[in-house]
Amino acid sequence: MARTPGRDLTPLFDPTSVAVVGASDDPAKYGHAIAAQALRAPGRRPVHLVNRRGGTVLGRTAAPSLAAIGEPVDLAVLSVPGEGFEAAVEDALACGARALVAITAGFAETGAAGLERQRAITARVRDAGAVLVGPNCLGVADNTTALYLASGTFAPGGIALLSQSGNLALELQLRLAPHGSGFSRFVSLGNQADVTLVDLVDDCARHEGTSAIAVYAEDFGDGRAFAEAAAAAGKPVVLLSAGRGSASARSAQSHTGALTTSADVVAAACRDAGVHLVATPREMTTVLAALGSQGRRAGRRTAIFTDGGGHGAIAADAAEAAGLDVPELGEAAQARLRGMLWQQSAVGNPVDLAGMGEQDPGSYATTVDALLSTDEVDAVLLTGYFGGYAASEGDLGDGGADLAQGELRAAREIVRAHAGRPKPLVVQSMYPASPSCRLLADAGIPVFGATEDAARALAALTVDEPAGPAAIPPLPPPSSAVRDPGYHSLRALLGAAGLRFPAARHITDEAQLLSAAAEFEGPYVLKALHLLHKSDAGGVALGLPDRAALLAAYREMHTRLGAPAYSVEAMADLSDGVELIVGVNRDPRFGPVAMVGLGGILTETLHDVAFALAPVPPARAERLLRGLRTAGLLAGARGRPAVEVTAAAEAVARITEVAAAHPEIAELEVNPLLVRPDGALALDARAVLA
Amino acid sequence: MARTPGRDLTPLFDPTSVAVVGASDDPAKYGHAIAAQALRAPGRRPVHLVNRRGGTVLGRTAAPSLAAIGEPVDLAVLSVPGEGFEAAVEDALACGARALVAITAGFAETGAAGLERQRAITARVRDAGAVLVGPNCLGVADNTTALYLASGTFAPGGIALLSQSGNLALELQLRLAPHGSGFSRFVSLGNQADVTLVDLVDDCARHEGTSAIAVYAEDFGDGRAFAEAAAAAGKPVVLLSAGRGSASARSAQSHTGALTTSADVVAAACRDAGVHLVATPREMTTVLAALGSQGRRAGRRTAIFTDGGGHGAIAADAAEAAGLDVPELGEAAQARLRGMLWQQSAVGNPVDLAGMGEQDPGSYATTVDALLSTDEVDAVLLTGYFGGYAASEGDLGDGGADLAQGELRAAREIVRAHAGRPKPLVVQSMYPASPSCRLLADAGIPVFGATEDAARALAALTVDEPAGPAAIPPLPPPSSAVRDPGYHSLRALLGAAGLRFPAARHITDEAQLLSAAAEFEGPYVLKALHLLHKSDAGGVALGLPDRAALLAAYREMHTRLGAPAYSVEAMADLSDGVELIVGVNRDPRFGPVAMVGLGGILTETLHDVAFALAPVPPARAERLLRGLRTAGLLAGARGRPAVEVTAAAEAVARITEVAAAHPEIAELEVNPLLVRPDGALALDARAVLA
Repeated sequence: MARTPGRDLTPLFDPTSVAVVGASDDPAKYGHAIAAQALRAPGRRPVHLVNRRGGTVLGRTAAPSLAAIGEPVDLAVLSVPGEGFEAAVEDALACGARALVAITAGFAETGAAGLERQRAITARVRDAGAVLVGPNCLGVADNTTALYLASGTFAPGGIALLSQSGNLALELQLRLAPHGSGFSRFVSLGNQADVTLVDLVDDCARHEGTSAIAVYAEDFGDGRAFAEAAAAAGKPVVLLSAGRGSASARSAQSHTGALTTSADVVAAACRDAGVHLVATPREMTTVLAALGSQGRRAGRRTAIFTDGGGHGAIAADAAEAAGLDVPELGEAAQARLRGMLWQQSAVGNPVDLAGMGEQDPGSYATTVDALLSTDEVDAVLLTGYFGGYAASEGDLGDGGADLAQGELRAAREIVRAHAGRPKPLVVQSMYPASPSCRLLADAGIPVFGATEDAARALAALTVDEPAGPAAIPPLPPPSSAVRDPGYHSLRALLGAAGLRFPAARHITDEAQLLSAAAEFEGPYVLKALHLLHKSDAGGVALGLPDRAALLAAYREMHTRLGAPAYSVEAMADLSDGVELIVGVNRDPRFGPVAMVGLGGILTETLHDVAFALAPVPPARAERLLRGLRTAGLLAGARGRPAVEVTAAAEAVARITEVAAAHPEIAELEVNPLLVRPDGALALDARAVLA
Repeated sequence: MARTPGRDLTPLFDPTSVAVVGASDDPAKYGHAIAAQALRAPGRRPVHLVNRRGGTVLGRTAAPSLAAIGEPVDLAVLSVPGEGFEAAVEDALACGARALVAITAGFAETGAAGLERQRAITARVRDAGAVLVGPNCLGVADNTTALYLASGTFAPGGIALLSQSGNLALELQLRLAPHGSGFSRFVSLGNQADVTLVDLVDDCARHEGTSAIAVYAEDFGDGRAFAEAAAAAGKPVVLLSAGRGSASARSAQSHTGALTTSADVVAAACRDAGVHLVATPREMTTVLAALGSQGRRAGRRTAIFTDGGGHGAIAADAAEAAGLDVPELGEAAQARLRGMLWQQSAVGNPVDLAGMGEQDPGSYATTVDALLSTDEVDAVLLTGYFGGYAASEGDLGDGGADLAQGELRAAREIVRAHAGRPKPLVVQSMYPASPSCRLLADAGIPVFGATEDAARALAALTVDEPAGPAAIPPLPPPSSAVRDPGYHSLRALLGAAGLRFPAARHITDEAQLLSAAAEFEGPYVLKALHLLHKSDAGGVALGLPDRAALLAAYREMHTRLGAPAYSVEAMADLSDGVELIVGVNRDPRFGPVAMVGLGGILTETLHDVAFALAPVPPARAERLLRGLRTAGLLAGARGRPAVEVTAAAEAVARITEVAAAHPEIAELEVNPLLVRPDGALALDARAVLA
């Protein structure tokens, strides 16, 4: 999707000069760590240390103030006490700073007053044409420009890490190291007062040195814009999102002043935007390690290859649990393997050397090559002992050295086979750190110690969409606002958008009732209007066979409820139909979010609903509907005819377009949407204005 | 539950003397590794090496035959070529061997002929009053008796490992080492020709040196007996079971001649027997590490305690994903924490030091103590950086040493607090190998590197049952066999057991039809009998208001289907009712297995069913029903009255008792079982005889 260029963050990631305000010799002070890091690449750009007491810091003369430096400063790190922060900002802008990194805490995360201060400072910075990261952040680093303005060092690599938590960034760094993965950039998001997550995703998408973007965020800011930026990034985006559970939501609120968005909405946005959503640092490491492997992609058909039955069975279960398929190999592939392997080896899938590897380590490589070259599978998972011969050389007695050498040879052959084939190979080894496994990992073949990690890695490489991440549908331009949320004006609005309803008339007395009834045939439906939950209040009468019954129902209902207006409708044919619920709510961060599900009494009981960012194009709506647990009902369970799912999908598209086009509609719900073999019909609708 | 003493395996685990037949100096031969291990404890018991060429093996004189040893042999390890196996067995028995460990392969796992040989050998061994492990196994070890008859060494500890895979045993050993866990025994199950998994579970349950039993099995043998043995063990049993997916089932079949049992049945048996079912070696390690921590048990209410918001939110999500609760702390607990912690610390749960730990490492310990002592939670999960100060002492500059010492002090205080409280504490650390974390682990506080592992560990310590593992309901004694699976005789059988049915009469002509109708009021139901799927075949007519309608329906149905017999029944009142399906099938390994679920059209669509070993006592049946995804329907969704679930549970108990008591019934199904606010009524039933 076309994206506006976004803000120029060059001064932030490649400044011409840097000043660290609050540089200190006191190791307890954060300004000490930052200053020490800033000095790591002295040749790249001038680095000035500022300490209001002057003197020396880290053996270098410190300026007593930014002004005292006597030359322009392009980027200023502000690690000063809260009360001196505004002054520090002014000094930095006066020195021509185009980028500020605000370590100082005590702003939005502390409440309303802090938020006010933060807003004023942000306005001031923007007026000056500068950018500000933070406040309440831990710094910034860019390995591609030798910019080190955060405590701790990040191994160089292709991952841009945008994190709202310093400790999680540190854990990811520790976990990715064994995979040989490293970082192009690190940005501590802080309060995102000026530079936001979205700005940073846009810039990292443009950044040549970045191959994947890893995000830990509790506050998405403009979640819709984040999803659009991620969808347009053109490189993998992996999101570690907290706050899926109620408890962590509490935690997030007390942290960085975040408004945590509900799990369903975040998951829907990630699915629509092609973002890899993960739950823990370990899972994020697994996915990043997989995505780093030369960007190979694959379908779900997976070959499991092992040297000891147990591991094969466990890995096959793990693969299927991760959503992969482990198809039995066809005769041709089995025959080829049978020709290469022992009689007692298994060739069906899982493929099991069953002892052959110990006699002939080369069989690992020839089998991997055969599996990578068959068109019956899309990817290969090698699991079990491989790596152990080189790892345990010492313990294997006289034959150990030969076995170890044989295994290393096999590893080199596996690397060659892998290089010659487009399919992904992922390895689980009991000895992931062994020389043989390091050899594979250095060649870009992901190696994991845990079976479930290897399976998750392959799952991350499967592609559902034909190509690339899904595009977020743009919101249509707001048309004339809806002022009357009444039932009949809502029918008119949705009807004009192409949604089908049964015939209906708005009536307020018996005369109108009877003339309405004369306009179409029974059976009739009578609804009392201006009641929030018509049916629960007994304000809906169904299947009234004739005008007499309709009139009787009207008199009874009017006496009981005294509603000012009613709707007389033609009763729809419910036979062979399935009732759906289609709703759109507005999420504070992600905007209009659509929900589709099975209607009727089971809606609450089963919670069988699916979410997507609205508007939902028909094709995506159909995927959502066919993904419901109860989708079998749409296909016609127990010999009933299948209903017209495409018509239902079209209806979902119309409903969600209307809701998205009318920001003044806070909630829109069509329930039930009746889907029959001959189409979809909206039987009722309600809206709540913002 | 009372268990028969089981077989005496003393000669297997603590023999008075050992001979290794097939001992060799050739490191490529398995007899080499076994012999080397056997000699590790020469003082404990005589160890003889036998090599048919005589000479020396491992520097010791080898006997050319067992007979040549010249003294009795209590346990003989047979690592000989297949063709010489029978002779070796005879020689061993002739030397008085009471235990045989059969390494030799080529028996049941190779097909029918091998199975025949295996059966003959087993009979011979049993006639001689000896026991045999294997064939096709890797050996046996018992660290409590210094018996080492397997390749590789197992660190001593409390876990008895019974495994059908050598590599998995090796992986578990590698994974458990960092947790300080070790093994009391290792038995390679092999083909279980004589000594079975059940025999070994029974013996390890009696074994003082064993605190937990870890099983990797593809072939459960008598699965019902395994479940009973596990339930009666009185110590934790953890089962790593492969073959849950279709692919691994294929793999298992080609491995150790296993018959893999379906996932649902294994899961049901484990739930009923209180067995911890795990899917991967890593999960098994996590659960064993947790169970090893002084056998503490807890409820689900979990306090999450961290030093950096991100980890708290992630851990809270992981805990809830693992089935734990993370309740917000009450005012009292929050006030106490507030008094101990910083103003910006979070005290709601997750509890977050928010930086205080770095200034005052002691706050880790005081907070853990406060959380372990509040009665608002059952367990504590510490997550995040703790361990990092001692691990990174060098990188932390001048203050590093003080921080490291402070953290180690805090670790010792945490150990004291933990020792003084009964609640479990589990730790996730970015530095699990740090001195501080080792200190915790050595004191029995499980430490993990991954958040999801820490959550899984706590989940393993939660107890659903009031106390201890569940007892498997005993099978009632088979009563008089059922010969007629006909509908009315089935009604009689189930009715005698206490199941309620509507009034019904078996009829074969119009005269009987009319006299039957005279016996009770309409509306009527007419069913054609002796059709497998009555309703699908149009053999069921419901809601026939009077005798005329009944007669008309009979004539139409008889013309169309020509069924020889029919059932005239009183139509049940379906209003406010929920239709369930209750079935019992016979599993080849686990015997009668009950299935309960939502009946009607949604059964196939939702697969909302639950399984348990039959018979199912009423209390367990009620738990199954209330655990269904659609359980909300039973509670009365959308203002409908709740149905009498206890009556449904009673009906399930009756049905499953009948099925269990009649092994000649291969399948028994009551569908629908109508549950209303006033009780449960069986509306139809069918059976298939074995």
